[in-house]
Amino acid sequence: MVKVKEKLLENIYSPADLKKLQPADLPDVCDELREFIIDVVSTNPGHFGASLGVVELTVALHYVYNTPRDLLVWDVGHQAYGHKILTGRRENFHTNRKLKGISGFPRREESEYDTFGVGHSSTSISAALGMAVASNLKKEDDRKIVAVIGDGAMTGGMAFEALNNAGACKANLLVILNDNNMAIDPNSGVIGQYLLNISKSHAYNKVKKEVWEGLGKLDGFGKTTRKFIQKNQHALKNMLLRENNLFEAFDFRYFGPIDGHDVEYLTEVLNDLKDIPGPKLLHVITKKGKGFRQAEMDQIKFHSPGLFNKETGEIYSSDCPSKKKHKFQNVFGETLLELAEQNEKIVGITPAMPTGCSMNLMIEKMPHRAFDVGIAEQHAVTFAAGLATQGMVPFCNIYSTFMQRAYDQIIHDVAIQNLPVIFCLDRGGLVGEDGPTHHGAFDIAYMRTVPNIIVAAPMDEVDLRNLMYTAQLGELKQPISIRYPRGSGNISDWKKPFEKIGIGKGRQLSDGQDLAILTIGKSGIFAQQAVKVLAEKEAISAAHFDMRFVKPLDEELLLKILKKYRLILTVEDGAIKGGFGSAVLEFMAEKGLSAHVRMLGIPDRFIEHGPSEDLYRICGIDEEGIVQAACEMSGK
Amino acid sequence: MVKVKEKLLENIYSPADLKKLQPADLPDVCDELREFIIDVVSTNPGHFGASLGVVELTVALHYVYNTPRDLLVWDVGHQAYGHKILTGRRENFHTNRKLKGISGFPRREESEYDTFGVGHSSTSISAALGMAVASNLKKEDDRKIVAVIGDGAMTGGMAFEALNNAGACKANLLVILNDNNMAIDPNSGVIGQYLLNISKSHAYNKVKKEVWEGLGKLDGFGKTTRKFIQKNQHALKNMLLRENNLFEAFDFRYFGPIDGHDVEYLTEVLNDLKDIPGPKLLHVITKKGKGFRQAEMDQIKFHSPGLFNKETGEIYSSDCPSKKKHKFQNVFGETLLELAEQNEKIVGITPAMPTGCSMNLMIEKMPHRAFDVGIAEQHAVTFAAGLATQGMVPFCNIYSTFMQRAYDQIIHDVAIQNLPVIFCLDRGGLVGEDGPTHHGAFDIAYMRTVPNIIVAAPMDEVDLRNLMYTAQLGELKQPISIRYPRGSGNISDWKKPFEKIGIGKGRQLSDGQDLAILTIGKSGIFAQQAVKVLAEKEAISAAHFDMRFVKPLDEELLLKILKKYRLILTVEDGAIKGGFGSAVLEFMAEKGLSAHVRMLGIPDRFIEHGPSEDLYRICGIDEEGIVQAACEMSGK
Repeated sequence: MVKVKEKLLENIYSPADLKKLQPADLPDVCDELREFIIDVVSTNPGHFGASLGVVELTVALHYVYNTPRDLLVWDVGHQAYGHKILTGRRENFHTNRKLKGISGFPRREESEYDTFGVGHSSTSISAALGMAVASNLKKEDDRKIVAVIGDGAMTGGMAFEALNNAGACKANLLVILNDNNMAIDPNSGVIGQYLLNISKSHAYNKVKKEVWEGLGKLDGFGKTTRKFIQKNQHALKNMLLRENNLFEAFDFRYFGPIDGHDVEYLTEVLNDLKDIPGPKLLHVITKKGKGFRQAEMDQIKFHSPGLFNKETGEIYSSDCPSKKKHKFQNVFGETLLELAEQNEKIVGITPAMPTGCSMNLMIEKMPHRAFDVGIAEQHAVTFAAGLATQGMVPFCNIYSTFMQRAYDQIIHDVAIQNLPVIFCLDRGGLVGEDGPTHHGAFDIAYMRTVPNIIVAAPMDEVDLRNLMYTAQLGELKQPISIRYPRGSGNISDWKKPFEKIGIGKGRQLSDGQDLAILTIGKSGIFAQQAVKVLAEKEAISAAHFDMRFVKPLDEELLLKILKKYRLILTVEDGAIKGGFGSAVLEFMAEKGLSAHVRMLGIPDRFIEHGPSEDLYRICGIDEEGIVQAACEMSGK
Repeated sequence: MVKVKEKLLENIYSPADLKKLQPADLPDVCDELREFIIDVVSTNPGHFGASLGVVELTVALHYVYNTPRDLLVWDVGHQAYGHKILTGRRENFHTNRKLKGISGFPRREESEYDTFGVGHSSTSISAALGMAVASNLKKEDDRKIVAVIGDGAMTGGMAFEALNNAGACKANLLVILNDNNMAIDPNSGVIGQYLLNISKSHAYNKVKKEVWEGLGKLDGFGKTTRKFIQKNQHALKNMLLRENNLFEAFDFRYFGPIDGHDVEYLTEVLNDLKDIPGPKLLHVITKKGKGFRQAEMDQIKFHSPGLFNKETGEIYSSDCPSKKKHKFQNVFGETLLELAEQNEKIVGITPAMPTGCSMNLMIEKMPHRAFDVGIAEQHAVTFAAGLATQGMVPFCNIYSTFMQRAYDQIIHDVAIQNLPVIFCLDRGGLVGEDGPTHHGAFDIAYMRTVPNIIVAAPMDEVDLRNLMYTAQLGELKQPISIRYPRGSGNISDWKKPFEKIGIGKGRQLSDGQDLAILTIGKSGIFAQQAVKVLAEKEAISAAHFDMRFVKPLDEELLLKILKKYRLILTVEDGAIKGGFGSAVLEFMAEKGLSAHVRMLGIPDRFIEHGPSEDLYRICGIDEEGIVQAACEMSGK
């Protein structure tokens, strides 16, 4: 029997194959799909819980809709594994997130079923609305447009901007709210609670379900009935809705909440909604990790668990315990707590990443002083600015890539007013398997053009710790951005007594005669190794300077360097265009100094996904790349 | 009698003076304040309608609250003239927006009553929440925090992020929704309509008012009654609220709508609300331009009317008609319509700036193809991306300074996917009287670090027109950013047959031997004048190249220039750090070329407000600055 069941998924190469099945087969397809995801992800790490939660929804959507002509937009996209498997990528799914393999997120270039590339949250309604308006203008009104968005993503402001505009456009658009009341970390904010309240209201739910099913059973719940629904929206509303409803304020017709793990019921509901015009919201209740007990029980751990035993649920740690201990994020998290215990003005702010950035340590100990504000980077920054006006010392931790969302707030609310907000940018540089949407490539460039702000990037754990210490002393009367990479550095005994770091002061790490290597942040680690190789294998004597600050530059040190060396190699784990090397060039032009400068960094293209080591090698900013550049410059 | 009345405002030097008056005096204060604003703004241009609309609210707030200990945050801030006049700046108010004068927006450095600097929209709730949380942590619970936000600003996503977080924080915060159903242009989106519906519902309004007044009349509507309100919130809600309410979904207690022009009633309501804990929203209905008939009737024209006759309402045009005709924004607006008439794939998108960017021309003629999406830059960009996936040709027009809000969407939704969205960035460079919050200083730097995107800046009207033409031909398979300045250029007969511009192709405008001046955008106009002066007065022969593109650079032309000239002067009307000059330096480093390069542009500090000519002079990028730099470089 098992064999027979397994054959269903084996024979699905596209949604057309899925459509050949009977509705009664769908639960089996779901079981197989879930099994397949567990099989593959347990041995090839990726996002896990989110895709398990939408197995039934995914099957139902491709069963009901005419994809790819009908357009399906997945918000964030780490829940789209089932979608990928059903749309021709089952046999490649083992390459998920690997170098040259398929992406962990929907990507337009990968498949015609991936209508919109995603990775960051809350974009789907805007994109889907664009598609809906285009279909309308092109008179392709048979096309259906569906956005699937989680309750966490719903806290992002742009989702509301889009709801507001979609309601006004009266576009034919179905937004499916995938409500698992859990983003990566438990949802903050009212929206999460609000949805929970709605979905917990059983009586309400029951009434609605009965009414809906009653309508469904009517023979002729086709065009005519739908027209009736349209015309009598208010009457129906009164029947269906007994509570205030947020989405109806946006002129969306609200349906639900319904059980997101009943695939047959889902297909019925989707079929019924398909031809109802205008903006609609279907509220679907799912469980993250559904069908894998341990993932259901610890949704945070199984968001992206790494390798695990699919029988026991045991997660295999890829890091040795000592290495894990000195992940940069842990240095941040532990140091923040330590400083906050000494300085009562310190507050912590994270937009929905407490576990990812390790601010959970402070949140647990000092819940009243550490704030998870939801997926809301813009608000996070201006909230920090508000706190700073009252003399508080806000540490606002946002991944480099997500800080792009709050660029205006950095300029307008923090830098113009010169408020001493301390930004900690985790995941600066190439992040690896999450790929181009998540690389922290641009922060050095986009930060350093903004007046007033200090732009620092520590090379190691001790410097990160000391920069954090320095920033909160109250001596800085301006904002500071401290960016550091994903993963761990080399120093395991980083918890040393605090030392103040001079603002705009770099340091020399090794001396040499032939050329000067100037690094910022993580690239310094590569350079240290490269300097050794150059000395031992190439007889090149390179001096290495860890500049620590992109702004202000250590002008004194730079003048010394430029006096002594004709060959300057700058290395950074950020975009070359407008980055650290560029700052060095500007300084030289300003001072009328010349030298042969070569700049290593992330080149002017989007870097794909894959292991960080490979990506740094591809970009030529690892040890090997530095050695090669130094040899070329030295003519060796 | 009139004399006596006028004495009220004359004697108000701070809110303390206001508080000495009787409630019955407040209507007279309002009349005088309104008169004063009309007097000054009619002769010294500034924002007008918004401040007239909140005269009563402003007086009531300073009368009831203990400012500056109680903290008042004005969203956007162009409605804060009355606030400035009542808080010690009456006698300086004639310097409003002038060089070295007071700012047209609240600024922390200007007054302790200006708690948070503003200019961009939708920041007030986040900032106020930060202040409220700080007060709570500092155990200063007597301090009241109030944010005043317009209905237009409410469409910005970050306002929702803040509402969501404020509800969860249960912070003591009063948000006053100043509902005039009109941002600069009539509000787009559902929120506007929603608020209109609420406020039009007279019966509802009446019931609520009566209930509220009834409560107010009860002796002892003090602490006890308030506690009753708290405990019995749901019962009260049922009395007060008969409709679904958006704000209550966010756990805000909703009060209103009330008449925002009844100052005595406003003070009563504010007094009653003052001690009710938790997040509260007071919905106040006002009229933009209130008290000046012409401004009430044409709110768009009187948003910022320039000089006008305060008796007749006649607006004096500061531009001669011919000059007005070739404002860059008109070139954009007229050309867009012209192109859209020929190319049916073109759609227009503006986030609430149809009049400001002249897309109103297309909206009037082709309402189904031109979209005002509300104050929602993030959504605007991703909506454009969605349209582009379906083969539409979106022109997305956003002021340079506001584009900062959509930086992540440019990278994540447009550039990574390489979608051919056409961004038109109006108001690039220094904008003048609006000051640092509005200068378009950073776009060249923040755009050019992003892969795939073409970054262009036309020097004149004809080039803007031809770049727009070139961009929509369908030949570009990538996004393009076309930035142009505020105001007008020199070419009045710009409506010539379209010509295609080669991507990444600059042009030589004059030849010379001594040095090469490389310009981008508007700075080319200054350079043209400077070249003449240099030749005539200084005997310096300068070649002038309008590079047109920051990315890709015209490498062929640059190689020629660098072969011929040892002295290179780059000029841009954007931030030097990371800007156009920096791109030239990077190119030289990459090619191993050297020259003496000097870079002119906006220096690394925030530039104040004042007439653009003065600001360009202060930054040294006008004719005079270029002449001086060229002389210094040439040793003359």
